Amino acid sequence: MDFEAIGAAAKRIAEHAQRTPLLEHRELDTAAGRRVFIKPETLQRSGSFKFRGAYNRIAQLTDAERRAGVVAWSSGNHAQGVALAARIAGVRARIVMPADAPQIKIDNTRALGAEIVSYDRYGEDREAIAHGLVERDGGVILPSYDDPHVIAGQGTVGLEVCEDVDGLDALLVCCGGGGLSAGCALACEAMSPETAVFCVEPEGYDDHLRSLASGERERADTAKPSLCDALLSPSPGRLTFPINQRLLAGGLVVSEAEVRAAIRYAFRVLKLVVEPGGAVALAAVLAGKLGEEYQRVGVILSGGNVDPGVFAEIITEKDEASIEE
Amino acid sequence: MDFEAIGAAAKRIAEHAQRTPLLEHRELDTAAGRRVFIKPETLQRSGSFKFRGAYNRIAQLTDAERRAGVVAWSSGNHAQGVALAARIAGVRARIVMPADAPQIKIDNTRALGAEIVSYDRYGEDREAIAHGLVERDGGVILPSYDDPHVIAGQGTVGLEVCEDVDGLDALLVCCGGGGLSAGCALACEAMSPETAVFCVEPEGYDDHLRSLASGERERADTAKPSLCDALLSPSPGRLTFPINQRLLAGGLVVSEAEVRAAIRYAFRVLKLVVEPGGAVALAAVLAGKLGEEYQRVGVILSGGNVDPGVFAEIITEKDEASIEE
Repeated sequence: MDFEAIGAAAKRIAEHAQRTPLLEHRELDTAAGRRVFIKPETLQRSGSFKFRGAYNRIAQLTDAERRAGVVAWSSGNHAQGVALAARIAGVRARIVMPADAPQIKIDNTRALGAEIVSYDRYGEDREAIAHGLVERDGGVILPSYDDPHVIAGQGTVGLEVCEDVDGLDALLVCCGGGGLSAGCALACEAMSPETAVFCVEPEGYDDHLRSLASGERERADTAKPSLCDALLSPSPGRLTFPINQRLLAGGLVVSEAEVRAAIRYAFRVLKLVVEPGGAVALAAVLAGKLGEEYQRVGVILSGGNVDPGVFAEIITEKDEASIEE
Repeated sequence: MDFEAIGAAAKRIAEHAQRTPLLEHRELDTAAGRRVFIKPETLQRSGSFKFRGAYNRIAQLTDAERRAGVVAWSSGNHAQGVALAARIAGVRARIVMPADAPQIKIDNTRALGAEIVSYDRYGEDREAIAHGLVERDGGVILPSYDDPHVIAGQGTVGLEVCEDVDGLDALLVCCGGGGLSAGCALACEAMSPETAVFCVEPEGYDDHLRSLASGERERADTAKPSLCDALLSPSPGRLTFPINQRLLAGGLVVSEAEVRAAIRYAFRVLKLVVEPGGAVALAAVLAGKLGEEYQRVGVILSGGNVDPGVFAEIITEKDEASIEE
């Protein structure tokens, strides 16, 4: 895995992916006490950055693999990214999704033409189900993070950030399995080595923070529910972790209340729809989790696929501690 | 009023205004049956395009005028634009706002340091109140649309659209008093004369449509309530109407149900927070109000200042007729 793979991925996805802008909001700068540059992957096709990695992988299938199609498992954003990428490429997509995934993600995945195989997140093994499908009917497993093509695709987010702004002191990246953070860290290593890349996790799913401390791939207790459905991977990836271990400056953790406040802030001030898992990096900067020495900070809003009911409930809550604007 | 004023305004506001991106969503292209380019002024500072015109006017106050400050009336977006522009320029702002304006707009205007004078939209005359304030304490009236500097400032939206995309067949612009449409029409006349500029109004406030037909400035029945609080001007402006009359290709009208469906669409697919008045142009294109001959269409989302309760209610409604994605 090196930067060349990311540059190649950028060329490969250019025709189909949205080049998301880099936004500045002076009110946010004031609230955060530093300059903040927002990378809204909420505006990416399929509603999250996941399309980048999925398309980069599918574009490299052999003809025989294209005929067999792809099989993936996902709580929702990777599912939609894979479904859209497969539709564009004209290949079959079968996706193993938890029965309790947000309804909007299940509906969108089906609307994009993918076949959905439901499973019980608390009792069944999604990887075993996916491998069973491949054994029965053939197909190529398309992992949501532990794949060099997927990591390279997600790294194009970091590549675009580095192209659009110079001299970032830090880049905050949400973290489930670590594919986005690994890809962005590789892009920054090549394009902006002075930028400290931090992964951000929700409370209860801080397996990267603990793994970075121990040097081992620690596990999260996936029986715990979390609002951040996009970030519930059980542990750092086999391929992603060595990259993150080598390149990340550290990990930050935010509470559910901080995530909800960040979603409200994005609604009220930024006018962007952000899902819980997509709001953790913004939550970290608003809640003051990052040292003051980082004065120019990039924040990736990784996705916006949130059920209307959940979003409605969060934006109509009162802030416990109101965020200064 | 000519294009030079818009070019000068663009330079004047460049340091302080957000250069909003131009976004494409393939899913929207499919839904609309044409290519659609979204100009999200929802992402503009103060949450709507109004900051552009307000800052362009305030930047040209004389020293004596700066000492006296500005007085404006507004249902909300102009209020916030003026308040922010005045704060940046360090001048006093007094703003006459209807008591039933969305709470978020009143709160934001106050938070930006403006003094608010409330009035009853159904019984009192806001212009008389504003002129009374000027007579009593001095100050310069800052109109929300009928002012050449304001029109030039709003025209920078059209200028940026024309810079970012070539060969638009049509540009759809929401319309209250007609400042944004007049400014954008002037920009298109100079930069993209082949582009047909349409104003879009909500049902019940179609005074531009009727005025374009009759050649006279027709009045709307302002006693009627409308979801589109940003577009409730009583009639086309004295300065804006001759420009719109000369340059607009026509007017389109959308129903409240179509506006609500467009807000849901923007939430679900575009991941953007759009207020009712800001969604009329998108509603027109989604509801098929524009002829098929317009295959490359720009759509301005003019603002995103919507109360959380209203937004929550709209996004959790079911679509009567589901919009095809």
